[in-house]
Amino acid sequence: MQNCIKNVLTLIVLMFVVCGQVAAAENAGTTLAALSDVQKYERAIHIMAMLLVGFGFLMVFVKKYGRSALTATYLLVSVSIPLYFLKENFYGFGGTEGLIDKLILAEFAAASLLICAGAVLGRLKMGQYMLLGLLFVPFYALNEWIVLNGGLGLVTGKVVDTGGSIVIHAFGAIFGLAVASSMTTLKEYDTPIECDDTSDRYSLLGSMVLWVFWPSFCAALVAPADVPRTAVNVILALCGSTIATYFASVKLRGKVSAADIANATLAGGVAIGSTCDIAVPGTAFAIGILAGVVSTFGFAVIQSRLTEMTKKVDTCGVLYLHGLPGILGGVAAMFVVSGINFGAQLSGILVTVVIAAVSGLVSGKVIAALGRRSVPYLDDEEFEGEAVEEDEDQPCVVAADSI
Amino acid sequence: MQNCIKNVLTLIVLMFVVCGQVAAAENAGTTLAALSDVQKYERAIHIMAMLLVGFGFLMVFVKKYGRSALTATYLLVSVSIPLYFLKENFYGFGGTEGLIDKLILAEFAAASLLICAGAVLGRLKMGQYMLLGLLFVPFYALNEWIVLNGGLGLVTGKVVDTGGSIVIHAFGAIFGLAVASSMTTLKEYDTPIECDDTSDRYSLLGSMVLWVFWPSFCAALVAPADVPRTAVNVILALCGSTIATYFASVKLRGKVSAADIANATLAGGVAIGSTCDIAVPGTAFAIGILAGVVSTFGFAVIQSRLTEMTKKVDTCGVLYLHGLPGILGGVAAMFVVSGINFGAQLSGILVTVVIAAVSGLVSGKVIAALGRRSVPYLDDEEFEGEAVEEDEDQPCVVAADSI
Amino acid sequence: MQNCIKNVLTLIVLMFVVCGQVAAAENAGTTLAALSDVQKYERAIHIMAMLLVGFGFLMVFVKKYGRSALTATYLLVSVSIPLYFLKENFYGFGGTEGLIDKLILAEFAAASLLICAGAVLGRLKMGQYMLLGLLFVPFYALNEWIVLNGGLGLVTGKVVDTGGSIVIHAFGAIFGLAVASSMTTLKEYDTPIECDDTSDRYSLLGSMVLWVFWPSFCAALVAPADVPRTAVNVILALCGSTIATYFASVKLRGKVSAADIANATLAGGVAIGSTCDIAVPGTAFAIGILAGVVSTFGFAVIQSRLTEMTKKVDTCGVLYLHGLPGILGGVAAMFVVSGINFGAQLSGILVTVVIAAVSGLVSGKVIAALGRRSVPYLDDEEFEGEAVEEDEDQPCVVAADSI
Repeated sequence: MQNCIKNVLTLIVLMFVVCGQVAAAENAGTTLAALSDVQKYERAIHIMAMLLVGFGFLMVFVKKYGRSALTATYLLVSVSIPLYFLKENFYGFGGTEGLIDKLILAEFAAASLLICAGAVLGRLKMGQYMLLGLLFVPFYALNEWIVLNGGLGLVTGKVVDTGGSIVIHAFGAIFGLAVASSMTTLKEYDTPIECDDTSDRYSLLGSMVLWVFWPSFCAALVAPADVPRTAVNVILALCGSTIATYFASVKLRGKVSAADIANATLAGGVAIGSTCDIAVPGTAFAIGILAGVVSTFGFAVIQSRLTEMTKKVDTCGVLYLHGLPGILGGVAAMFVVSGINFGAQLSGILVTVVIAAVSGLVSGKVIAALGRRSVPYLDDEEFEGEAVEEDEDQPCVVAADSI
Repeated sequence: MQNCIKNVLTLIVLMFVVCGQVAAAENAGTTLAALSDVQKYERAIHIMAMLLVGFGFLMVFVKKYGRSALTATYLLVSVSIPLYFLKENFYGFGGTEGLIDKLILAEFAAASLLICAGAVLGRLKMGQYMLLGLLFVPFYALNEWIVLNGGLGLVTGKVVDTGGSIVIHAFGAIFGLAVASSMTTLKEYDTPIECDDTSDRYSLLGSMVLWVFWPSFCAALVAPADVPRTAVNVILALCGSTIATYFASVKLRGKVSAADIANATLAGGVAIGSTCDIAVPGTAFAIGILAGVVSTFGFAVIQSRLTEMTKKVDTCGVLYLHGLPGILGGVAAMFVVSGINFGAQLSGILVTVVIAAVSGLVSGKVIAALGRRSVPYLDDEEFEGEAVEEDEDQPCVVAADSI
Repeated sequence: MQNCIKNVLTLIVLMFVVCGQVAAAENAGTTLAALSDVQKYERAIHIMAMLLVGFGFLMVFVKKYGRSALTATYLLVSVSIPLYFLKENFYGFGGTEGLIDKLILAEFAAASLLICAGAVLGRLKMGQYMLLGLLFVPFYALNEWIVLNGGLGLVTGKVVDTGGSIVIHAFGAIFGLAVASSMTTLKEYDTPIECDDTSDRYSLLGSMVLWVFWPSFCAALVAPADVPRTAVNVILALCGSTIATYFASVKLRGKVSAADIANATLAGGVAIGSTCDIAVPGTAFAIGILAGVVSTFGFAVIQSRLTEMTKKVDTCGVLYLHGLPGILGGVAAMFVVSGINFGAQLSGILVTVVIAAVSGLVSGKVIAALGRRSVPYLDDEEFEGEAVEEDEDQPCVVAADSI
């Protein structure tokens, strides 16, 4: 399989060297437009911090899995960004955006892929993560084209989704769940993935990096004059979900769960995505609170029941952090935005769910055909050196009803 | 008490949804003013990184307390920013600044609150931290209004405090000391708060994040043309305090203390605050050196004596990192800035000290009335899972003369 | 020796207070030029994050050395930036750049110094690191002046090196190797420097921070209109080296090495430096792949042989991350840039290698005269508290053939 992936990547490199000749910018000197592009660049760097440090460390909670999670993050980003970029440069398919817009769109694709990978974390080898990236990006681009650019005429009218609640978060989460469901077997289900509490601080580091730069994610492509409002809305939504997560976690579990704090606090950012540049601050705060409650409820109540019912494992709980809050955000737009095209918004959500589910199921089968894990993956299979034993006082398991 | 706080927060949410309707920006397109605002936004994001990752991880040195410190950071930020924002939108009280200026002012309030919380770290439950935030912000805003905007006519003339040495750092530190002093009892004093050396690297991570983004904190609201000079001054001041801290630590203790390095290195940033946009580089460097020496002297010499004398504990030593260097910075302005209004500067400092002390004492009584700790707080009281035992080779205790 | 360094530093402080009076900026208000400078400031902050958090944590892999590595990083940055700045303000020697350009040039010097220090990590005391900084910066500035500004007439014509592959990376690495070679003895060689796997995640954190902000390093001084292209080139080069590192590591070692992932992934950024604003994306990607392969080959194959052959240790392997990829980048420019001055480019590289080697040898002798280590340095010699014992399942040693 290693060879197979290597061949595909080699092909991509070749195509890229041949086709990937982005026309050199021809701006000269310091103009308002050039400065505005540099500001987008700043936000693109913030998003990169979210992709590598944010998502990477948020996933370092699986036991004996730190090196793999971070290496997988590196590889997923490095495969998806050039691949998406390549697509942008085929005539007729690539948009007319400037170079930095294309970079940001490529980062969005990488973000969605990392969300997707969270669902199968600990079940894939490195090569399979790369394969997942190669399969994911074309489907992601297809959905983006259909939902946001009217491709194939399936969605008629404007879908409100500036910060990607629907096409980035919900798409990635559902694709990942479909991959997990088409890959895993009953035997795998019985072998829980252990996480360890010593990694809490790493997860919280990742979580905080995501929280901090989230406004740049949502405001990445908005006009300069709309950046302040967007930023304030995103920050208020995140404040709302953070406070709500604390109260919901105490209420639903009796004690606070550090995993809830690391994850559900971010649900406000996910849900405000669709309306981040349109909502008024009070509404943004309220959407954040709602998203925090829904997400914490998902982690604390739904996760264990759904896992037992379906016998499928969603390692990082992407359904509860990205799936449900993403759809919530897309639906909230119908209540918040005046003059919204209800039909377009609704069909945008539905099309996204369907494409993600179907393409995820197909991708899962392809990946499984190239090697399937009956037991969870440990660092030391692919990495030099033994997996480091952390303190084991309090192993928690991400599976079955033991959650 | 949980209910009490929940009710207060609910009330705030309601007020916010009703009143917090910030007028939508009406700029159109890409103008110099809009680009300038986006640049302020960039600095606002840098400050957010300081608040969550910086302050959060700097506080992860108390034993068995990692999750609590980070969760408390999340909650303090999420309570204070919307609360301050709300205040800004009441007619007649809120300033005339733009939206992004208000965000930055709200972040300043959150920074001051986090400093304050450092004094009582490990003594409060999560709900009490939120209550602390609810009490702190109005007093902070009152002091800011009196000292910087001439409120009540108590301070007549301009107080030089661009980067908040006085109104942010000194205010937060003194408020925190007052809370600690009005809350803690002799019995609490006898139970030391343990810290563990394995957390050094986390503390240094937090410290470095604060160091890196400190120029954006000080330059957040200065005019574009003044940003370069401000940045260079802040960086030189930080370089000065870093070098000075190393030599002072070796001199005063015989060996370097990693805690000195994590904390006192930042004193230059605190002290240059008042004059960051006015000083020449040589002066900035000198102020940094002075602040590093004062702060290290505080940690290495004063702290243990004062603790024994007063029988009160300042967990993070905020007096030595923020209190003394903050006042130093405010006083330094009287020597550095030509044409400064001595009376205004001096009364600005005195008013800040008095308001902080009085309001801190009152707040401490209120919080103590809602539950008082006779022993330091451990993660596992409120958090799921046992507190992880770190290696315990070298427990250090933050209390009494054992320091 | 402590006294000696203190005296030198005191002298510098005095000189700085006297001479370091940068003329106050006289721009007024918000102009395109002022906004452009603020954008450079943003990139300067990104570079600062690389210097402290990036380089600092990348070096936290040496056993019992976490606190020292981070403290050394703090001190090296704090010594080199004011020192380089001071030089800039002597009439006739300093350039005509604006204040923020000078700050960025000072940061470049600090970056090169940190690379240099990587070669001798774990062999110096804190005072010696500072001395290294005091010796390094003048030689660095000399080389920069000769190679980039035509100083002494040694290099005639333009050397293409926007992002510093040659004058920053290769210079720092070779200087460091020369210091190591002139300092270490056979006895030292026999005492391996141990690293521990529990620090992998810290190293990967440092690595990711470097990766994320690398585009700002390369684009720091380019014109606004060229920032997008530069950023895309750097990101594609990093993606290329990341993918290549994974495959090369598996191929050459059988399993993935986390150290390869933390280090060689960055080689693309090193190598694209020279041509970052000129190359087309396909070329950038290809340069990245090549650099990743070369760097991983260095770590996996050359390092152990060279160490055994020369009996000299390069603690962090800076030859393989910065030395070879830096020279590769400088040479690549001769193939990639049309109309390049071959003679200038080649002599730029050669001059850099010679100056770095000679000045490094001299500096090593000076430092060794002030105290030489026969055994590797442990945290607890200079720091309070015992060095924390990490889990030791898998000690790896950075020396001899045991690599």
